[in-house]
Amino acid sequence: MNRFLDLADFERAQIKDLLGLAARLQQHPQPNALAGKVLGLLFLNPSLRTLASFQSAMMRLGGTSVVITPGQGTWQMETRLGAIMDGAAAEHVREAVPVLASYCDVMGIRMFAEGRDLAADLAETQFKMMADLCDKPLVNMESAASHPCQALADWHTMDELNVPERGKFVLTWVNHPRALPLAVPSSAVHMAAMRGMEVVVLRPEGFELPQQVMEKAERAARESGGSVRETTDRNEALAGAHVVYAKEWGSPRHYGDDEAEARLRQNLGDWCVTDSWFRTTDPNCRFMHCLPARRNVAVADEVLDGPRSVVVREAYNRMVVQMAVLYRLLRG
Amino acid sequence: MNRFLDLADFERAQIKDLLGLAARLQQHPQPNALAGKVLGLLFLNPSLRTLASFQSAMMRLGGTSVVITPGQGTWQMETRLGAIMDGAAAEHVREAVPVLASYCDVMGIRMFAEGRDLAADLAETQFKMMADLCDKPLVNMESAASHPCQALADWHTMDELNVPERGKFVLTWVNHPRALPLAVPSSAVHMAAMRGMEVVVLRPEGFELPQQVMEKAERAARESGGSVRETTDRNEALAGAHVVYAKEWGSPRHYGDDEAEARLRQNLGDWCVTDSWFRTTDPNCRFMHCLPARRNVAVADEVLDGPRSVVVREAYNRMVVQMAVLYRLLRG
Amino acid sequence: MNRFLDLADFERAQIKDLLGLAARLQQHPQPNALAGKVLGLLFLNPSLRTLASFQSAMMRLGGTSVVITPGQGTWQMETRLGAIMDGAAAEHVREAVPVLASYCDVMGIRMFAEGRDLAADLAETQFKMMADLCDKPLVNMESAASHPCQALADWHTMDELNVPERGKFVLTWVNHPRALPLAVPSSAVHMAAMRGMEVVVLRPEGFELPQQVMEKAERAARESGGSVRETTDRNEALAGAHVVYAKEWGSPRHYGDDEAEARLRQNLGDWCVTDSWFRTTDPNCRFMHCLPARRNVAVADEVLDGPRSVVVREAYNRMVVQMAVLYRLLRG
Repeated sequence: MNRFLDLADFERAQIKDLLGLAARLQQHPQPNALAGKVLGLLFLNPSLRTLASFQSAMMRLGGTSVVITPGQGTWQMETRLGAIMDGAAAEHVREAVPVLASYCDVMGIRMFAEGRDLAADLAETQFKMMADLCDKPLVNMESAASHPCQALADWHTMDELNVPERGKFVLTWVNHPRALPLAVPSSAVHMAAMRGMEVVVLRPEGFELPQQVMEKAERAARESGGSVRETTDRNEALAGAHVVYAKEWGSPRHYGDDEAEARLRQNLGDWCVTDSWFRTTDPNCRFMHCLPARRNVAVADEVLDGPRSVVVREAYNRMVVQMAVLYRLLRG
Repeated sequence: MNRFLDLADFERAQIKDLLGLAARLQQHPQPNALAGKVLGLLFLNPSLRTLASFQSAMMRLGGTSVVITPGQGTWQMETRLGAIMDGAAAEHVREAVPVLASYCDVMGIRMFAEGRDLAADLAETQFKMMADLCDKPLVNMESAASHPCQALADWHTMDELNVPERGKFVLTWVNHPRALPLAVPSSAVHMAAMRGMEVVVLRPEGFELPQQVMEKAERAARESGGSVRETTDRNEALAGAHVVYAKEWGSPRHYGDDEAEARLRQNLGDWCVTDSWFRTTDPNCRFMHCLPARRNVAVADEVLDGPRSVVVREAYNRMVVQMAVLYRLLRG
Repeated sequence: MNRFLDLADFERAQIKDLLGLAARLQQHPQPNALAGKVLGLLFLNPSLRTLASFQSAMMRLGGTSVVITPGQGTWQMETRLGAIMDGAAAEHVREAVPVLASYCDVMGIRMFAEGRDLAADLAETQFKMMADLCDKPLVNMESAASHPCQALADWHTMDELNVPERGKFVLTWVNHPRALPLAVPSSAVHMAAMRGMEVVVLRPEGFELPQQVMEKAERAARESGGSVRETTDRNEALAGAHVVYAKEWGSPRHYGDDEAEARLRQNLGDWCVTDSWFRTTDPNCRFMHCLPARRNVAVADEVLDGPRSVVVREAYNRMVVQMAVLYRLLRG
């Protein structure tokens, strides 16, 4: 394994194997496994869990990290090919990425969607350009259309909590003050489908996930024996659910058009998960969210502070699964 | 010891024991004592000494640190309970603190006073809320009303310099362009009283320390055999002083009212410590300040650059005593 | 060796010896050589290579680093002596530097030219003040007039690539949206002269390097058997060149006068290195630049992306030579 960019790049058995390694490292720490190894972390977007969990994962395996955040003590960076760089950006990623890679044994890059051209974002145009510049093992710390470490942590969390592999996984759109990227919802549906679950995407009109995203999840479901479908019917979706996975995302229909997006969202204030959403779910239904979460906009205090919420465990498992990813990338 | 939040939470003998451990670690380094341990540092306010000394303390014991600074590469954070999070803050501390704690073996949190409601700040409403969210050993890196690591470092500094335990400790208010919190002056008078010193708080009219702060110090003085009093009489205060400890703080009388505060301060420009303040002190009188210090506003160059100043030693001792605190929290 | 501030502080043989150590550490890693040692990094200006390469150099020798960036989680800093600090800066470097040094075994400081007074900048007034405040081994991470780590990395890069010691080294001025400091061009010409090369400074009228810079390089050339000259004649300069080293710098003639500088620069858009610059050079001529580089302003994509460019190798060698510098400073 030389790159960890998307769960879809691996067979289901390989992912299960990686989760097994994560569980073993959790139970039997290997505090010197990556001694002397250096992880370079390039953050083109903000982060808390990713920033802290990658560093702590390396530390717990005996390795170290260097963090670079353009604009925060480091030059602002240009990403456009062919740019005439007479503006604010002093450095191009075409230099920054190979230079940082040259100091490190493994790299992580975080680079959100540009949010202007849906096809380009779904094609990972930007992230692929970055990945091509890096000649070291590489981890996707969230790209335009994929957040594989989050997906892996969520899978591990469901395994830990004995959520049935054939259980009902409801990804529900929730409200947010502005349009957010598609990386997490895309990765979540694909992961749950790959796990073999009955995946239901619950969202209001206009927030359909792109066909490409659904088809990718469907392919995974066909192989695992799961299923994937979309609905606007909250009652149907939630009935019997084992997991309610809430996520904010922008309308693909109005991609890059903030005003049209906002108009579409203005009457959707009730897309905030409350305790009442769990009346007909499975009694043990869990509430999941990748965080950060807008309290009382996307999800009510009563849910986040209640017994169904496993959001802190999901976040903790970021560190756990990333230990496994880093271990595989550096030690095979 | 599971938390280090305030010197008042400990017996005098326990603090003396901690200072003894600090001295031993200073003389006989234990570079692997905390190998494999991770310290999470959450800075809701700026810092230099705290940021550098906690990291270096961990490093010198073989441990490592993760630094999180909201708004600096990390999401801005909400602290109000029940907030409807439709503004700039993307993450609530109710998630951020337990998540960061889950990656770490010990945590430090810095969170200054809000500066609006004196009673709430003195009651440590905010910091207690944060502390309750953290299920790992915790260090107060400066809260609204307490800065125990600074107090411990100052105590250690006086011990090193043979400042008499019954010596005269003068905490003097000094000028500053704006109102600053009460954490350091509150902790300094309490610490000096706990050490057994003759504590004099010298300040202009309107800058009396809150009754609650004085009473806490008086209780410590009664147990240690020291004393605590306040005065506006600079001559009386400085006569025979063994330590002049300068600190800026806002008027408790006008708490949260910047304009009234500024009016009160406008004729107080001579509350800047100069060499002339030491004419009647003990000949060996030391000048102390927690830093950062506004040169030629709070204290003149001649004092900071002169032989009485021990401010750099105080800052160095932050690292020394924090090694002891971290050692106790992690190894008992 | 207790300070690494400028190549001119050392004999040529000492630099060759340091480069030898760098090569040995590169071939035979010593992952525990600096175990337990702490490097303090004070960045008064932005950085990518310096920030990442110093940290990774320490890591690869078993040591650790603390990074302080004023204004980024840390107080803004005052540098003027005698300042009445009633403005934005909360802390003076007269405290900040000795405090940070007290936590560390070795320090690095980055502090660019002020860009107002050429004589003061060339005299390193500011950096010398900082260095005087530091009682630990110290590395210049770029000062007003010197960038010795870059110079050392460039020398190492030319050695690796078998660029002849008597080869022709052309430092060429290139365009930039604003006036940049003289540290890198000054260090580059001095380094190449010290290496024994035929050094040609190619620049438009008005961008002559200061006499003091040229004389320093000439002294080094006299000792090494090299030579140094300036020209505006691009054809003459480039003919037979073994290295084209591009760098942006502000007009010393209009130092601190941005408008006059900009007028002088407005017709100099063709001072952007393209493939055509290499028609008459040595066939193996290399393109060097310290980075960050403004693509298609200072240098064309075709050059940076072409086979002549060794900019990433130069950046990588920052880490390599800094390992040697840190090793010497801490282990002798």
